[in-house]
Amino acid sequence: MPTYTAPIRDMQFLLHEVMGVSGSAVPGYQELEADVTAAILEEAGKLATEVLAPLNASGDREGCTLENGIVRTPSGFKDAYETMKAGGWMGLDCDPEFGGQGMPYLMGTAVGEMFVSANMAFNMYQGLTHGAYSAIHSHGTAEQKSTYLPKMVAGDWTGTMNLTEPHCGTDLGLMRTKAEPQADGSYSISGQKIFISAGEHDLSDNIIHLVLAKAPGGGEGTKGISLFIVPKFLVNADGSLGRRNGVSVGSIEEKMGIHANSTCVMNYDEATGWLLGDLHKGMRAMFTMMNEARIGVGLQGYAQAAVAYENAAAYARERQQGRAISGAEFPDSLADPLIVHPDIRRNLMDQKSFVEGARAFTLWGANLIDRAHLDSDAEAEGLISLLTPVIKGFQTDKGFEMAVQAQQVFGGHGYIEEHGMSQFARDARITQIYEGANGIQALDLVGRKLAADGGKHVMAFFDIVKSFIKENEGDAKLKADFLDPLKAASKDLQAAGMYFMQQGVKNPNNALAGSVDFMHMMGHVCLGLMWARMARVAQQALASGTGDEAFYKTKLATGRYYMARHLPATALHLARITSGADTVMALAADEF
Amino acid sequence: MPTYTAPIRDMQFLLHEVMGVSGSAVPGYQELEADVTAAILEEAGKLATEVLAPLNASGDREGCTLENGIVRTPSGFKDAYETMKAGGWMGLDCDPEFGGQGMPYLMGTAVGEMFVSANMAFNMYQGLTHGAYSAIHSHGTAEQKSTYLPKMVAGDWTGTMNLTEPHCGTDLGLMRTKAEPQADGSYSISGQKIFISAGEHDLSDNIIHLVLAKAPGGGEGTKGISLFIVPKFLVNADGSLGRRNGVSVGSIEEKMGIHANSTCVMNYDEATGWLLGDLHKGMRAMFTMMNEARIGVGLQGYAQAAVAYENAAAYARERQQGRAISGAEFPDSLADPLIVHPDIRRNLMDQKSFVEGARAFTLWGANLIDRAHLDSDAEAEGLISLLTPVIKGFQTDKGFEMAVQAQQVFGGHGYIEEHGMSQFARDARITQIYEGANGIQALDLVGRKLAADGGKHVMAFFDIVKSFIKENEGDAKLKADFLDPLKAASKDLQAAGMYFMQQGVKNPNNALAGSVDFMHMMGHVCLGLMWARMARVAQQALASGTGDEAFYKTKLATGRYYMARHLPATALHLARITSGADTVMALAADEF
Repeated sequence: MPTYTAPIRDMQFLLHEVMGVSGSAVPGYQELEADVTAAILEEAGKLATEVLAPLNASGDREGCTLENGIVRTPSGFKDAYETMKAGGWMGLDCDPEFGGQGMPYLMGTAVGEMFVSANMAFNMYQGLTHGAYSAIHSHGTAEQKSTYLPKMVAGDWTGTMNLTEPHCGTDLGLMRTKAEPQADGSYSISGQKIFISAGEHDLSDNIIHLVLAKAPGGGEGTKGISLFIVPKFLVNADGSLGRRNGVSVGSIEEKMGIHANSTCVMNYDEATGWLLGDLHKGMRAMFTMMNEARIGVGLQGYAQAAVAYENAAAYARERQQGRAISGAEFPDSLADPLIVHPDIRRNLMDQKSFVEGARAFTLWGANLIDRAHLDSDAEAEGLISLLTPVIKGFQTDKGFEMAVQAQQVFGGHGYIEEHGMSQFARDARITQIYEGANGIQALDLVGRKLAADGGKHVMAFFDIVKSFIKENEGDAKLKADFLDPLKAASKDLQAAGMYFMQQGVKNPNNALAGSVDFMHMMGHVCLGLMWARMARVAQQALASGTGDEAFYKTKLATGRYYMARHLPATALHLARITSGADTVMALAADEF
Repeated sequence: MPTYTAPIRDMQFLLHEVMGVSGSAVPGYQELEADVTAAILEEAGKLATEVLAPLNASGDREGCTLENGIVRTPSGFKDAYETMKAGGWMGLDCDPEFGGQGMPYLMGTAVGEMFVSANMAFNMYQGLTHGAYSAIHSHGTAEQKSTYLPKMVAGDWTGTMNLTEPHCGTDLGLMRTKAEPQADGSYSISGQKIFISAGEHDLSDNIIHLVLAKAPGGGEGTKGISLFIVPKFLVNADGSLGRRNGVSVGSIEEKMGIHANSTCVMNYDEATGWLLGDLHKGMRAMFTMMNEARIGVGLQGYAQAAVAYENAAAYARERQQGRAISGAEFPDSLADPLIVHPDIRRNLMDQKSFVEGARAFTLWGANLIDRAHLDSDAEAEGLISLLTPVIKGFQTDKGFEMAVQAQQVFGGHGYIEEHGMSQFARDARITQIYEGANGIQALDLVGRKLAADGGKHVMAFFDIVKSFIKENEGDAKLKADFLDPLKAASKDLQAAGMYFMQQGVKNPNNALAGSVDFMHMMGHVCLGLMWARMARVAQQALASGTGDEAFYKTKLATGRYYMARHLPATALHLARITSGADTVMALAADEF
């Protein structure tokens, strides 16, 4: 069975040594002294290791079951959920006005990585609740907030988001679910939604569905869409639960992975709903959830790679097979451990250098969100809107790839379910698909975010990279191993952006045919920047002799690997992009 | 449910227009006139589409069951197996002396692709039988051949290969299964084997296990290993089945995929076995099976991608979602089909250009095997020994990647099991692992095959590439689109080989740390060569106006895509390789 160890040292390194959180001006960050974050991370890590991780494989095997309209989660989930609630983890970064602990999103993200690594399917129940919380918190009336948020923050009630219908996934303009206004100000919601994660289950007393539907008078396409709150049980004026609403689960899906999370077909049959936010502005309200969810999914991608890596490294140290090429390293054993073999190391270093880079990138993203929300920092807001599709798309593509590589270390033992490595790959696979398939992330990046506000945000991004290089290029060691590769990769990225500008005007297909390649290039540049930052800190720590040498040396070596072996991918992506759209678009539809 | 259409036109193009089989001097090829191969391919295609494909998803859902020592295959498998037997497909390329149809391996390979695309788990039962047939055919005594081969060729009996034990996968020197010589010339075999595909099932009357075991006096490591024939039921002198042998299934594995193929733990408890081939030369005899099996697995890789691609393309033509960037292509519909979107096309072209290139490469490989076996062509033998790890490793890595990309076209519908796209990815995943994990293929290529016979075979390979370029560079169109990119990629490959020679001498880790990258580079150069060959034929056909213009134009366009978008990967692989082993080997085992 797989194990899980929380990466507390690495997170503390990022929070305090790289990001210097407690010295930051962001409101709420000053309290994040090292001992405070250590206490939180250790408690969260304990919960992840001792409560959530042991239920991961059994939850996968058992799955969810639907009988007489009731969905049962796997054995042990209800107890684990109660433990999470009792610890106040659901409301860690929620508003104290509604019972939350008021921690910054940054801490919610760090803790979230642990929970997702330990048990992704389990953590989705609260993850979706958090998304629904955010939407109601941002767009709800005072009454809606006081009715729903305290219960959601406490974890007594959970939440969902309902977008997809059988005939419409990405293209929400095709939506058919209808909302008819009623005399009492409520709406009558009818339609069918599919792929609703945690749509029905036995963990909470009530489920607050946020449902996109078309109300009369909004016009064609996505313009007519509004967002509604549709609780499973209606809520009485005193906060107690009233009658069952007209919403029910039709079936649950058989999936490749995340078996322990119920993926439901939800039927709305004249269900009572209340408008959330403005009429016909449902897409905007939904995007509050979507953007947060996308970063959460980007986190899931690398968090699955992280736990898969931990287990692959452990297996490579234990499993004896073959001999080191340079002669037996353990002559008293019948064979050397796998980890002596260069290709096993290549595989593990791919994983390690990606996971640590992605962790830094994601925490940086969380920091930008805090700056935007807590400090009204418009630049941070612009930057994170640019980076969100990269965090989602790049990190989930790579996260899946790395989980698959981790599985490969186990050979045949990775393919059978017994060791749990297959589950990491199967669970990670969904992250490339939901909350906007990665092709959509790339389209959002290239088709929308690059040019947003006159290209201001992407220029700001390049300035950050350039400034970092300029400030540090006096350091010869950093320059050769980190800054020069970063500069080359960043140049490739700029060249791709330039190509899009020049050729995309002539034919937008020239940009869109290279959109996924661009997203990956940008991901590599972001992780290259993270590694350069981390390397600088590690070098300084080594120079000042603060101790913990092994940690900093390992950090530097891992970063050098990323720069040498991952980062050169930008040149390949650039070559693909600049080959243009002609070969991509050459065939007629029936010639495929 | 997925559909399957046999690629008859493409196979006929390769067999006759590209390879000119019926004009070839290889014995047995002259009879392969276009109408003969068409008849075979059409019949095989019918069987694949109508009998095998419909059982693929149901077989995956149902899986195999073990009860009281009896393994049951999924519903319909037994009937389908009888249909295959009745058609004589099991012995298509087997020796007529034992009831086979005596077709070249080339035809077995073409037909095999269809069966594997339609139902990989099903086809493994006969695939392993074919491997065991080959080993007995090559190494068996006259009596062994007459006892076992007619029944195996007919499909009445099936075969298995037993290598792996719980503590030894790749490193067979650790083997513990023992063979004690008996007075009657037989051996008593005891030990446990795991991951035995088709180890026990209900399709055939008898199962002929080929088992590696250590007989006394052979010395340490792999030197002491011999190969034994251990039938499930002993065979009487008159060919009838005798008593049950001391071999039984202990359990069957829960796996990520190929659920319909039983993967067994086999217990040998003083089972009666007969030596196959020479005592203590079991590894050599086993490699007869392994090499064939590796090419078969390389075929599985792209065959899964092929059927996944077919279904992804069909879905992209049907599913309406969003609008073309340049304006609605189907203004009367609520949305355009997915296939209007450049990134969907990029995804599909990745798949199509890989699958068709891999098909050409694999049939070329089969042709080399025929030349080696039927025509005693030592050059062909050397070349296929070099290319076998590339066919296996590159094609299965890419095959899985492409099956995953095909799944991605379906969005959320690809993640649920209903559409069958998850199964293609899950089934394809095993191909990267079994018959030698792909890291082992790369080690075989770089550590053994490159330098074999003084590097003669790799030089011969480069000569083939160079000659093709030289012969055709007068053709300006071919030069720009195909020959120049091929030349650049081939140059990268040579540079990598040179790096290995120079740096590998100083430190073999420098070669091994780049072995997987080298395998992929070589795969790209091989597919680049295939595309250049196919493009030449397509251009000539268009110039001569033989008709079927759409086919040849599509072929050229698909090839141009491969050259423009896949082939530049060689530069990335070269950059990784020449970054050396230092960053790969930097960490101590406990620093991972």
